[in-house]
Amino acid sequence: MTDTTNNPALEKVLARADANLEGSLDRFYELLRIKSISTDPAYRDDCRKAAEWLTAQLETMGFEASVRPTGGQPMVVAHDTSPEGTHVLFYGHYDVQPVDPISEWNSDPFEPKLVPAENGDTHIVARGASDDKGQLLTFIEACRAWKEANGSLPLPVSILLEGEEEAGSRNLGPFLDATEHELKADVVLVCDTDMWDENTPAITSMMRGLCGVEVEIEAASRDLHSGVYGGAARNPLQVLTTILAELRDANGRILIDGFYDGVKELPTQITDLWARLPFDEDAFLNKVGLSVPAGEKGRSVLEQIWARPTMEINGLIGGYTGEGFKTVIPAKASAKISFRLVGDQDPARIFDAFQSHVEARLPADCTAKFTVHSSSRATNVSMDNPYIGPALKALSEEWRTEAAIAGGGGSIPVINEFKKRLGMDALLVGFARFDNRVHSPNEKYDLSSYKLGIRSWIRILSALATR
Amino acid sequence: MTDTTNNPALEKVLARADANLEGSLDRFYELLRIKSISTDPAYRDDCRKAAEWLTAQLETMGFEASVRPTGGQPMVVAHDTSPEGTHVLFYGHYDVQPVDPISEWNSDPFEPKLVPAENGDTHIVARGASDDKGQLLTFIEACRAWKEANGSLPLPVSILLEGEEEAGSRNLGPFLDATEHELKADVVLVCDTDMWDENTPAITSMMRGLCGVEVEIEAASRDLHSGVYGGAARNPLQVLTTILAELRDANGRILIDGFYDGVKELPTQITDLWARLPFDEDAFLNKVGLSVPAGEKGRSVLEQIWARPTMEINGLIGGYTGEGFKTVIPAKASAKISFRLVGDQDPARIFDAFQSHVEARLPADCTAKFTVHSSSRATNVSMDNPYIGPALKALSEEWRTEAAIAGGGGSIPVINEFKKRLGMDALLVGFARFDNRVHSPNEKYDLSSYKLGIRSWIRILSALATR
Repeated sequence: MTDTTNNPALEKVLARADANLEGSLDRFYELLRIKSISTDPAYRDDCRKAAEWLTAQLETMGFEASVRPTGGQPMVVAHDTSPEGTHVLFYGHYDVQPVDPISEWNSDPFEPKLVPAENGDTHIVARGASDDKGQLLTFIEACRAWKEANGSLPLPVSILLEGEEEAGSRNLGPFLDATEHELKADVVLVCDTDMWDENTPAITSMMRGLCGVEVEIEAASRDLHSGVYGGAARNPLQVLTTILAELRDANGRILIDGFYDGVKELPTQITDLWARLPFDEDAFLNKVGLSVPAGEKGRSVLEQIWARPTMEINGLIGGYTGEGFKTVIPAKASAKISFRLVGDQDPARIFDAFQSHVEARLPADCTAKFTVHSSSRATNVSMDNPYIGPALKALSEEWRTEAAIAGGGGSIPVINEFKKRLGMDALLVGFARFDNRVHSPNEKYDLSSYKLGIRSWIRILSALATR
Repeated sequence: MTDTTNNPALEKVLARADANLEGSLDRFYELLRIKSISTDPAYRDDCRKAAEWLTAQLETMGFEASVRPTGGQPMVVAHDTSPEGTHVLFYGHYDVQPVDPISEWNSDPFEPKLVPAENGDTHIVARGASDDKGQLLTFIEACRAWKEANGSLPLPVSILLEGEEEAGSRNLGPFLDATEHELKADVVLVCDTDMWDENTPAITSMMRGLCGVEVEIEAASRDLHSGVYGGAARNPLQVLTTILAELRDANGRILIDGFYDGVKELPTQITDLWARLPFDEDAFLNKVGLSVPAGEKGRSVLEQIWARPTMEINGLIGGYTGEGFKTVIPAKASAKISFRLVGDQDPARIFDAFQSHVEARLPADCTAKFTVHSSSRATNVSMDNPYIGPALKALSEEWRTEAAIAGGGGSIPVINEFKKRLGMDALLVGFARFDNRVHSPNEKYDLSSYKLGIRSWIRILSALATR
C-alpha cells in the first residue's frame, strides 16, 4: 500500500469530497426522484427531465454541457478539456428499469429511503440507486471535488450520459458515429459494475454478451373452452413449455445446435486468479435464499455466472392468469428468453439457431413469431490496457486492500460500441454490491459505495493524470 | 316422425311462443346487459340484480318466486306446482365468465349485438348469450307460452337458478340440503349443453369431471438480475416448464401415477352409436383454425373430447411479461392446470397424485404451493332414465330429425349434487353449438337456438306430462 499523505494536492481533493458529502447526497436523492424509466413511453418527459437535471449540474461545475436529442431518449454530453494529458470519456446512463412488481417494494421506488444495514452501513433504497444513478454520480462528484479543491480537473474529461441503456441502447451507435470528433478520447471509463465484495474493489475484465428474444406460439384461431375442445385441440402453453423444457439437459447444457461455437475454456491465469479470490459460493447463494448452484454441472459458481453462456426464461405468459380459474385453452402463449454469451459467440447466429430449434419442434397447426430485443457480443478487456495498472493501484490505496480483477455476468453492450466505432479501450470500475437488487424491487446502493466511490474516482483521475 | 297437428293444445302453445318471440328477445337482451360475473367481487351487485330481474319475471308469469341469500351469490327459487303429474325441477345459472381479454371482443360484451351468420341464421353476441342466459331463458319462455296459451303449465314445475356455476358452485350443496323439502322433484332438467350439430338436437348422457389446480413454484427470496445470477441461480420458470412438459408423453398420455385408475373403455353400444353419428372431425377442428387432433394417439376426436381424461395448462405466468424486455430471474412462477375426468376417476386422488408428482421433481431450493380451484367427478346419466325416451321423441319432432345421445367434454358438477343430495336423475338438453365461443371473446347464441329451444321445451313438457 502506498502512503497517500505525501500527495497534499490529492489529500485536499479527498477532504473536499468528504466535506461535500451531505450536499452530494441531496443531489443524489434529487436525481433518484426523477422517474426516468426508458422502456415505457409514459415516462418520456421524466427521462428528459433527468437529462436536463444532469446537464444543469455539469454546467454549474463549469463543464460545457448540453442535452442532445436522438430518435429516442436524449443524451447528455459534457466537456472540460482545458487540462493537458490523458483524455478520458466517462460513460453512464441515467435511465432505470421499470418498477414492477410494485407490490413487492417496501417503500416508494422514487422516494429514496435510508435503511440502516446490519454491517453498520446505510442502504439508499430507490429504483436506479445502484443502476446507474448512484454509480454515475460517484464520478461526477469526484470531478466536482477536484474542481472545487484545485480549481481544475487533473486531466481532460468528457462525459456521455445515455438514457436508453435499459432499453437496448438503440441510438448509441449512430450517436457515436455522428459525434466521433468530440467524443473520441484515450480511454472510456464506465461505472456500472460490482465490487468484488463489500471490502474489495474490482476492475471488471470480461462481461457476457446478450441475445434477448421473444417467441409467441399460436395454435387455434381463438381461445377455446377446454370442456368442449380439451383433449383434441392443440394447446400453445403445452407446446411452449415442452419446447422450452427441451432447450437444456439435466446437466444445464444448452441443446441448441452450434450454441457453444466460439465458447473457449478460460486461460489458467484467470482460473488461478479466480481460485485465489475470497469468493464464498454458499454465501453468494444463501443471500438470496438459495443453496445449490443451478447451472452447468462441473463448473464453479464464478464460471457459471461469468465465463459460461446461459439460457434463462425471463418471462412467460399465456391463458388465464387472474384470480380464480378459467378453463381456457389459449390461442397463444409467449416467452421472453435471454442467452448470456461469452468469448466469440455471435448473437445473430444464436438467434437463428434458436429460431430453427423452435420451428423444427413445432407440432401441426402451430406457428411461431420471433422478436429480437437485445443482441450484443461478450466484452473482453485486454489485460494489456495501460490504464488498468494505475487504476488498480488507486483503488487498492483507497480501500486499503488489494483490488481484484473480476469477471461480470451481466452485459454492458455499449463497451463494444466504443471499441468498434471509436477504437477506445474501456476501464470498468464500479462500486455496486452483489446484493444491490438491481432490476428488482427494493434496489439499493450502500452509503459507503457512494462515499468511497467518489474518493476512488478522485484517486483514479490523479493516477491516470500522472502515470 | 309424429305429426303434431293432431295435438291442438300443443299447437296453440307453440303458436303463442312464436308470437311472443319479439318480446322474449327483448327480455333476453335485458338479462344480457346485466354484468353478472360471479368470480369477481366487483360485480356482486350485478349478480344480485340478475337474480332480482329473474325473480320479477317469474312472478309476473305467476310463479311463486324469491331471491334466496347464500354465503356467496344468491339463488333464485320459483314454483308453480298447481298441476298434477311428473314434478320437474329446472336448473340453470345466471352468472357468466369474466370477459378478458377484452381487446379481442368485436363489441361490448354486455351490449348484445346481432350479427348475420353465413348460414342465414343470426348470432346474438354477448357474454353469457349461450352460457347460460340464453339457454335458461328457453325454458322460462316455454313456461310463459304454456301459461299464456293454456292458462296453466302441463305439469308441476320448480325452478332453481344459481349465481355461482362459473365460480365452483360452492354454496349449491348446502343449499340443496337446506331446501330438500321444496326442491325434491321427479327429475332435474338442465339446459347447459350443446346440440349435436346445427340441425340435430341432442340429449347428453355423459359429462367429464374436473380437477382444477394451481401450482406456484418459488426459488430465490426475490427476483434476481440474470446478468448477476444467471447460470447459478435456480429459475422457477425453468423448473415449472420442465415439470409441466414431463406430465404428458409424446402420445398424449398423462404420466401421473395412478391417473388412469377408474377410467373404463366405452361399451361398444356407445362407440357404435358415436361411429354412426354425422360427426366431421376435420370440420370440427377447421372451424377454430386447427387440422390435427392433439390428444391421445389412437383415439377418435369424439373419444378425446368426451370419453378420455385430459390435462390442460389453462394459464401460466412468471417473470416480466410487459412490453420490451427485462432480464430478470423471477422468484416465482405459477400455472393453472385442469384435468378433465371420466368414469370413476376421483378428483381428490388426482390432486394428491399431481401434488406428489410435482414435489418429487422439485429441484433443490424450490418450494411449491398448491390450490384446488375445482373438484368434481364425471357425470354419467343412466340410459334407463325413463324421461330420456319422451324427451328424445319431442326433440325429434321439433327439429324434424332423429335426436342424438351425445357425450359432453365439459363439466356440470351440479348434476352430481342433485343425484347425491336429492336422489334425482337429470335430463341434459341444450341448444348451444360447438362454435358458440363460451368462455371466450365474442360468445354468441344462435337466434334459431333460442327460438327452437323454446319450442323444444314446450314439446318436452308436453311429452313428460303425457308419458
